[in-house]
Amino acid sequence: MMTGLAALARGAIEPVGLITATPPFAGLELVDFPELIVGGHDVRPGPLDAEARRMWSESRAIPPALLDHAGDFFAEIQERLRPGTLVGSGERIASLAEAGLATRVETPREAIARIRADIEAFAATERLERVVVVNLASTEPPPERPIPLDFSEVEPLLDDAAACPLPASSLYFLAAAEAGACYVNFTPSAGGSPACLQQVAIERGIAQAGSDGKTGETLLKSVLAPLFAARNLEVMSWVGHNIFGNLDGKVLDDPRNKAAKVRSKDHLLAEILGYAPQTLVSIEYIESLGDWKTAWDHIHFRGFLGTPMTMQFTWQGCDSILAAPLVIDLVRLVERAWRAGERGGLPWLACFFKSPLGVTEQDFATQVTMLRDWVARMTADASDG
Amino acid sequence: MMTGLAALARGAIEPVGLITATPPFAGLELVDFPELIVGGHDVRPGPLDAEARRMWSESRAIPPALLDHAGDFFAEIQERLRPGTLVGSGERIASLAEAGLATRVETPREAIARIRADIEAFAATERLERVVVVNLASTEPPPERPIPLDFSEVEPLLDDAAACPLPASSLYFLAAAEAGACYVNFTPSAGGSPACLQQVAIERGIAQAGSDGKTGETLLKSVLAPLFAARNLEVMSWVGHNIFGNLDGKVLDDPRNKAAKVRSKDHLLAEILGYAPQTLVSIEYIESLGDWKTAWDHIHFRGFLGTPMTMQFTWQGCDSILAAPLVIDLVRLVERAWRAGERGGLPWLACFFKSPLGVTEQDFATQVTMLRDWVARMTADASDG
Amino acid sequence: MMTGLAALARGAIEPVGLITATPPFAGLELVDFPELIVGGHDVRPGPLDAEARRMWSESRAIPPALLDHAGDFFAEIQERLRPGTLVGSGERIASLAEAGLATRVETPREAIARIRADIEAFAATERLERVVVVNLASTEPPPERPIPLDFSEVEPLLDDAAACPLPASSLYFLAAAEAGACYVNFTPSAGGSPACLQQVAIERGIAQAGSDGKTGETLLKSVLAPLFAARNLEVMSWVGHNIFGNLDGKVLDDPRNKAAKVRSKDHLLAEILGYAPQTLVSIEYIESLGDWKTAWDHIHFRGFLGTPMTMQFTWQGCDSILAAPLVIDLVRLVERAWRAGERGGLPWLACFFKSPLGVTEQDFATQVTMLRDWVARMTADASDG
Amino acid sequence: MMTGLAALARGAIEPVGLITATPPFAGLELVDFPELIVGGHDVRPGPLDAEARRMWSESRAIPPALLDHAGDFFAEIQERLRPGTLVGSGERIASLAEAGLATRVETPREAIARIRADIEAFAATERLERVVVVNLASTEPPPERPIPLDFSEVEPLLDDAAACPLPASSLYFLAAAEAGACYVNFTPSAGGSPACLQQVAIERGIAQAGSDGKTGETLLKSVLAPLFAARNLEVMSWVGHNIFGNLDGKVLDDPRNKAAKVRSKDHLLAEILGYAPQTLVSIEYIESLGDWKTAWDHIHFRGFLGTPMTMQFTWQGCDSILAAPLVIDLVRLVERAWRAGERGGLPWLACFFKSPLGVTEQDFATQVTMLRDWVARMTADASDG
Repeated sequence: MMTGLAALARGAIEPVGLITATPPFAGLELVDFPELIVGGHDVRPGPLDAEARRMWSESRAIPPALLDHAGDFFAEIQERLRPGTLVGSGERIASLAEAGLATRVETPREAIARIRADIEAFAATERLERVVVVNLASTEPPPERPIPLDFSEVEPLLDDAAACPLPASSLYFLAAAEAGACYVNFTPSAGGSPACLQQVAIERGIAQAGSDGKTGETLLKSVLAPLFAARNLEVMSWVGHNIFGNLDGKVLDDPRNKAAKVRSKDHLLAEILGYAPQTLVSIEYIESLGDWKTAWDHIHFRGFLGTPMTMQFTWQGCDSILAAPLVIDLVRLVERAWRAGERGGLPWLACFFKSPLGVTEQDFATQVTMLRDWVARMTADASDG
Repeated sequence: MMTGLAALARGAIEPVGLITATPPFAGLELVDFPELIVGGHDVRPGPLDAEARRMWSESRAIPPALLDHAGDFFAEIQERLRPGTLVGSGERIASLAEAGLATRVETPREAIARIRADIEAFAATERLERVVVVNLASTEPPPERPIPLDFSEVEPLLDDAAACPLPASSLYFLAAAEAGACYVNFTPSAGGSPACLQQVAIERGIAQAGSDGKTGETLLKSVLAPLFAARNLEVMSWVGHNIFGNLDGKVLDDPRNKAAKVRSKDHLLAEILGYAPQTLVSIEYIESLGDWKTAWDHIHFRGFLGTPMTMQFTWQGCDSILAAPLVIDLVRLVERAWRAGERGGLPWLACFFKSPLGVTEQDFATQVTMLRDWVARMTADASDG
Repeated sequence: MMTGLAALARGAIEPVGLITATPPFAGLELVDFPELIVGGHDVRPGPLDAEARRMWSESRAIPPALLDHAGDFFAEIQERLRPGTLVGSGERIASLAEAGLATRVETPREAIARIRADIEAFAATERLERVVVVNLASTEPPPERPIPLDFSEVEPLLDDAAACPLPASSLYFLAAAEAGACYVNFTPSAGGSPACLQQVAIERGIAQAGSDGKTGETLLKSVLAPLFAARNLEVMSWVGHNIFGNLDGKVLDDPRNKAAKVRSKDHLLAEILGYAPQTLVSIEYIESLGDWKTAWDHIHFRGFLGTPMTMQFTWQGCDSILAAPLVIDLVRLVERAWRAGERGGLPWLACFFKSPLGVTEQDFATQVTMLRDWVARMTADASDG
Repeated sequence: MMTGLAALARGAIEPVGLITATPPFAGLELVDFPELIVGGHDVRPGPLDAEARRMWSESRAIPPALLDHAGDFFAEIQERLRPGTLVGSGERIASLAEAGLATRVETPREAIARIRADIEAFAATERLERVVVVNLASTEPPPERPIPLDFSEVEPLLDDAAACPLPASSLYFLAAAEAGACYVNFTPSAGGSPACLQQVAIERGIAQAGSDGKTGETLLKSVLAPLFAARNLEVMSWVGHNIFGNLDGKVLDDPRNKAAKVRSKDHLLAEILGYAPQTLVSIEYIESLGDWKTAWDHIHFRGFLGTPMTMQFTWQGCDSILAAPLVIDLVRLVERAWRAGERGGLPWLACFFKSPLGVTEQDFATQVTMLRDWVARMTADASDG
């Protein structure tokens, strides 16, 4: 995402993969690429530059020339990085964190306050009008205890990490909300999705979007399942095996973390079809694949006269490369909606997510229509004004 | 189609694959299965029953039990079959015709008159209120000469097979139109698509739909291509290889017949994407596959930072089984629209066709919305009335 | 297997899939199809005929006509069936057994004696010169405790099911050995493979072969892995996902039973390649597939200049149909070798098995050469004699 | 090949893909990488370096770092390049040649003499003991006229390009033979394969090997077809579609050139199986794929009880990267055999070729055994001496 933003800002690449760069979005007065300033929190050691170069050395996915030109850009962002929190992140993620972080002890409330202060300092230093926080961390385990529906019941627990049901992603959400920053959850972690936090978003006057970016296999499910529904073909079983070798894959090797991901990849089929075929989703870490995620899906369906038929597909996509432009699109769109006064979850961003906030629609084509309708409304408003 | 209709009429199977059997269509007062009476024209020898049994013996596609129960149904239809015409059908199809037909000499006008008389007799004998003629013949070569835009220029040529540019499918269309029957073109042949014949449909007050039923690989193109467009992923090349072993495959082994089919399978990509990627479509006759069409598609696309990625799919579908319910759906819907007063091409049936009549929309989801909107309008009209 | 044997015995089908029916085996004087008499032990209720018909109704794999003609054949075998034993079969298999069996209590020694008596009575009644017992039961969990290397240490434990480490498959082996019958283990269960039982086979003068019939994905591994070795292409990872819906699949849904199977499917790669790439093997029960096993394998390898490349395959095979002719081949070959005086494990049958007894060779082509060499020796002996 | 040789010579890469770098070949005293001096003939303009860089820019197949270090190596080879001949190369290849070449007029005899002089000068300048000429040019059309069986009938025609039936590849072969250099034909072109030229090789005392390097889809056919034969599974049809985008692909876009290639890829199936299933091989130029050849093969076979089953595979390999190590292996092995006194075609190199010279064996495993046996003999001879 950063390598691409550096290249976009200096006009070195075509904006392939960015939907906000297509004609329908031209009249929206979105924030321009050079205006986007990147900062953030991380729990892992190691310079950004080296991490980006692994996309080349391990995955042949980012041409070295683009990396060579992004050196200064990375160095500037590196200066703006602050230590993340391990409170509520789960054992697997904690095991990947840098040594210093792992020994830091803080309550959830202290973590929120610290991150909030970082965000506010970031905005002040860079003289930013608006900040959008995006959760791009590896998938957390699902919360072990139910999160109360009313935030007033959660608030007192923030002083005790052992009692507080909020995972790290939700602490970042609260920090963002308190700092008056919007929040985008690109992962299946809880983030701002719990009902009590959706309420916080509205009260604090921020916009949020999520959750779990739809980049590959699940995207195809949301495109293909409506076909079977529209033709009254009965899906008997839908098996999807995913293999990939990046850090996310390593984190998902922990069954607790994987559970959250599999759930997010699986539920939409029944929602689209109106019945529940037998489904199977696996996600496995295969080191040699690097950032390349290969999915094989086997769809067994029944047609006229009960005749069984089969569709199979393989998807060979580079995970980070697929996600990066969506993140940029989301930041631009959330910022625009917020500027226009929208608050709380933004359901018209459903086409970006596996588990869209505030809407049950899972059919990709319908979700795209929702986005296009919003663009049309915004453009009409703009020309009215 | 006939085996299925026999089974539907006696309630022996679930209506899987029939969209007109789903709840949204319930209020339309469509013609019921037992009310549909099948007749037709054919150029090939051999009883229907034996042909249907080959679906079992060569393709394991229709369970013998269903065939055993359809014996009487086939026998009745066999009685209603009349000899088709070879005028304008092309050499390949003529070579498959029964001996008697091949020596029959008639002008286009005579062929039209004969077929029209057959249709009228069929309607009279069976006491039918409405007849819908469906072209399910093998694909013709494209017309060798341009068809004049004005029917008055075509009409005088009907007395001379050598001078007349209309292929057999268009003669059947004219026979239907003169008999006051609607026309559905399930093939890529010309049928009622030439501009001068679309005019005839309106003048004669019939409804028509077409062309080229969208059952497999092209259906998937019309579902998947919009995904790449919606995500601004650049399709660099789209290769589709189709192999199958039924009679249609044998006919398409003639390059002239294949040309019409390939064109119909290929053009939609550029229409959906807004640019023309390199495409390749092959259709090859592989005898052992029988009625099973296997398609392998390889989609090579470019994402963010110009990263090349790949999607591949295989589709293993039984061609006749996929087509059959669409034919039944089309007959029910065209009859209904006609009953409601619609005339000429029916663009809201686009989701059934590779080259829909009277509309350029190729995105399957949008086409489905067009159909649903029509159903909603009809249902509202019905409840208003 | 039985349907096929019935059809072969009356000359109703071509012997496709049977290698003993090919010319090189013609001079071996193998037992002829009508001479093979089938009996057996089973733990499940339900007539054989109904089971075979499910191959048609659920999997479209055996044409009804073949079943119709095999009715008497099935009835005769049904008469010869005796109740199996649940001692040492594991919970999953026990849960599928008929009610009567589940309550029967017997020690391992009693089970062996009972089964031995059944085998001897079968041979006497049918006036058989030789009996070959084939283990075709579902996969057992691996033995929980190590099996002593010396049979004298095992023997005293046969009186106590709780103390005896032998699984059911090994009890059947002992019953066969005591009855003077050969033993073929077509499953990954222990059977006659433990060292102390291999010794028993030699002492008792029986021949045995095993284990785990190589019918699909593993067969392909043993064919393809040698290619990568021969070309010095470095296999980085080999992922194999298997889905199928027959009873074996249901049994393998228990992780304990699955463990035995996965181990048997996986170890050969390192043995062939000489190093251990990352491997992953999954076997999942997908009900709609019936007896059709679909495997998807993804092989990620590195070529010259370290360039990563990919081979993928899908295998859509009908499990029982693939196994059946191998079972008939094995019975004919083991009987022939035994007749010629061979005792103990038969290593030249390696090409039939995932984990061949008495030999480490895993390269299919080399295994086939071993079999062909044996055939040549036997044929030479025969013509010498 | 050159980039790799440069890297191997300086020890910068592992010899992955080179079989002559594996232990069994260690005792053969093969020529070492730094001892190999590359020269050649070419008909195309453009520096080698730029061509190699396109492997990176268009196909992401050679890491830039390797190219950066090979600059001097390329420059030295560039100096040793001489203009090729267009006599007998066919129109398609001629159209790709540099302008100067296209207007040069020479008889076949003059072309042979010129190339022979180049080879002799190359050997003298570089002080080489032995030269091996490798044909790596794009595929020629098959010869239009039969080539006489006796070279005395061909010889007089060398003065007349219009009358001479020898294609360019055969002229290079004759030049090599006259210069006392060995010849390896890595293409399906005629080269030294015509019977009269095999005789020339023996008379001139040179060794030769060919033809048509077996790198991908055909390699897999020669590995998989023996499996179906060994299991008596009946292959009903075998379809192979190949797509790729390098210069070879452009040349094969000419149906005349493609005919030679398809024949070479297709004939082995019947030779291995012993009967001829329906086969289909396509090779299509898809520009976006660059040097990556993707093959999809669909194998439809019949098992026990006539049950139809399917295996499909896709092969995503980088063509030049797969070919390069085979070329280096072949040069080392042919040089070694020649040094040991072998003359004429070398049948034990069959595993490298689609249409091996002097042997009909097409089963890859058997071919590999032939090579291993030769290595064993050579090693034994070496230790005897």
